[in-house]
Amino acid sequence: MDTSSDRQRWLDEERSVRSTMAEEGVVSPDQLKSFGGLEFWEQALQGTVPAPPITRTLGFVPISVARGEAVFQGTPRFEHYNPLGIVHGGYFFTLLDSAAGCAVHTTLPAGMGFTTLELKINFTRALTATTGPVRALGKVIHSGKSTAIAEGRIEDPDGKLYALCTTTCLLFPLA
Amino acid sequence: MDTSSDRQRWLDEERSVRSTMAEEGVVSPDQLKSFGGLEFWEQALQGTVPAPPITRTLGFVPISVARGEAVFQGTPRFEHYNPLGIVHGGYFFTLLDSAAGCAVHTTLPAGMGFTTLELKINFTRALTATTGPVRALGKVIHSGKSTAIAEGRIEDPDGKLYALCTTTCLLFPLA
Amino acid sequence: MDTSSDRQRWLDEERSVRSTMAEEGVVSPDQLKSFGGLEFWEQALQGTVPAPPITRTLGFVPISVARGEAVFQGTPRFEHYNPLGIVHGGYFFTLLDSAAGCAVHTTLPAGMGFTTLELKINFTRALTATTGPVRALGKVIHSGKSTAIAEGRIEDPDGKLYALCTTTCLLFPLA
Amino acid sequence: MDTSSDRQRWLDEERSVRSTMAEEGVVSPDQLKSFGGLEFWEQALQGTVPAPPITRTLGFVPISVARGEAVFQGTPRFEHYNPLGIVHGGYFFTLLDSAAGCAVHTTLPAGMGFTTLELKINFTRALTATTGPVRALGKVIHSGKSTAIAEGRIEDPDGKLYALCTTTCLLFPLA
Repeated sequence: MDTSSDRQRWLDEERSVRSTMAEEGVVSPDQLKSFGGLEFWEQALQGTVPAPPITRTLGFVPISVARGEAVFQGTPRFEHYNPLGIVHGGYFFTLLDSAAGCAVHTTLPAGMGFTTLELKINFTRALTATTGPVRALGKVIHSGKSTAIAEGRIEDPDGKLYALCTTTCLLFPLA
Repeated sequence: MDTSSDRQRWLDEERSVRSTMAEEGVVSPDQLKSFGGLEFWEQALQGTVPAPPITRTLGFVPISVARGEAVFQGTPRFEHYNPLGIVHGGYFFTLLDSAAGCAVHTTLPAGMGFTTLELKINFTRALTATTGPVRALGKVIHSGKSTAIAEGRIEDPDGKLYALCTTTCLLFPLA
Repeated sequence: MDTSSDRQRWLDEERSVRSTMAEEGVVSPDQLKSFGGLEFWEQALQGTVPAPPITRTLGFVPISVARGEAVFQGTPRFEHYNPLGIVHGGYFFTLLDSAAGCAVHTTLPAGMGFTTLELKINFTRALTATTGPVRALGKVIHSGKSTAIAEGRIEDPDGKLYALCTTTCLLFPLA
Repeated sequence: MDTSSDRQRWLDEERSVRSTMAEEGVVSPDQLKSFGGLEFWEQALQGTVPAPPITRTLGFVPISVARGEAVFQGTPRFEHYNPLGIVHGGYFFTLLDSAAGCAVHTTLPAGMGFTTLELKINFTRALTATTGPVRALGKVIHSGKSTAIAEGRIEDPDGKLYALCTTTCLLFPLA
């Protein structure tokens, strides 16, 4: 496995997404209601809806979406560190919550919304400023009438596991 | 209850901590070993050890520490938003993980370290840029030889609950 | 603290409940709809609705209920052991799930039902056949339109903590 | 897919295991230290160490073990019901905790033990006395020096998902 070329490809894809995404912003409730979740995220990747403000603040991006799946990517930096000299758990969580929540969102038709009820994360390996790019892979594993369950994992280009999560979302018609 | 004056007091305390804390940085493993956890955080509040880099990036601060307890505070802003127009779950998590992890840290003597194995968070209310300051209160609820359990809650000055968590930490002698 | 008399009092209360409760059984959906949750459990304690079959199988009982709170009790025995010579985690879970779920149930008016979406348990101490009676204390800590969150703890008469949990329930109108 | 024949095969395998397993009992600490975890469970299936008492009480059995994996099976009955007329969450949990914990156990050499720190379960479908046999599949997904993480799922012969879990175990040398 040529890891260094995978790493380069990941960095290239992150750069490519950044060059396409729009400025940070939020959408109005009326706009939001007009999108199916998959369509919303496809437009975010194409830059025709605003980028989520938190992605700029913590320096990560969506990479790809499909029905029931989503991938986000970031490259940990010093500014994400806790006082102990490694990346803060909040960085892991933000990527995983984004990927798992977005995976649920992609399954929703226009007019339906969701909210995250709970998320449990397990940490398996530290992230540092020398780790390079990592991806959070979110996937829906159960979808009912009013709730959905998704799981997520953070991996590097070698497939090393840094954290994993399961999350429960509530689904509801947008007012 | 005069909430507006509580809110003002919280904002004043946040400003006061900010004026005292040092520049962002991390401590060396050797430095880290020399501190008991409570002492470490007392020095962080006094500005004699560096501030955690993540606190600058996400705009929050430690407010107070005691043996088995810690309080962190932040004021949600637009830059913490997800695309749906509310604060991203990662912001909640970062405050809670900081408070609960720090609460565990304060129970450790010099030479002992900890790592967070897992954390489960429940969300109960949205945060927005008009919420004002919120606090994450972390508290140790069980402490054994090699593991500790802490819980945390995010509240505003009215005592409204925004999220809660439980977390399991592994305790070990620093190398 | 006179623990032995507390222990005796707990055993007496368990015996008293057992003498009052009805035979094991379940209620029909129509019956169920006619009860508020608190009323249902008060009638279970009085023996005017059937006892839950699982309580006979694992040897535990409800002790008391109030709006948003419930207490269940059991005395661990050899038949609850795992192969390692201590009580199986499933025994802890069954008591906690009962107490936390029942606490949520007590908040519901007639015509509303609930289902447990998820539960996370932390274990802090082993139970054995010499522990004596333990209680699972369930308490609602957040209640919304369509979901509720409860927590639970298992304690002995000395107040020693054996396990704790948080759980998320979905609330819905019974068909 | 011929589900009815899968169901029959599962029931046959359960019967076969029951006919081979020993009487319920526990092993002494000294005996326990002499076994690697995989060997211990292979002997439990062959009936050369005692069956776990809880398996008799709740009516389930181990079906198969391999390094990092374990399968348990049960057939829900009326005696597992909660008062609402479906199987109690404690039954789901007991199967999942057994499968996930046993999966971790199979990775341990003689002289090492484990304890479950926490387990989070998500419920996706009700079990009733007409469901027929279900299996809890446990699998280790991360194994470190002092902790391991496993996941589990409950499925029926059609592959329908009833519940899933992740669990964190602490590993330690047996005294």
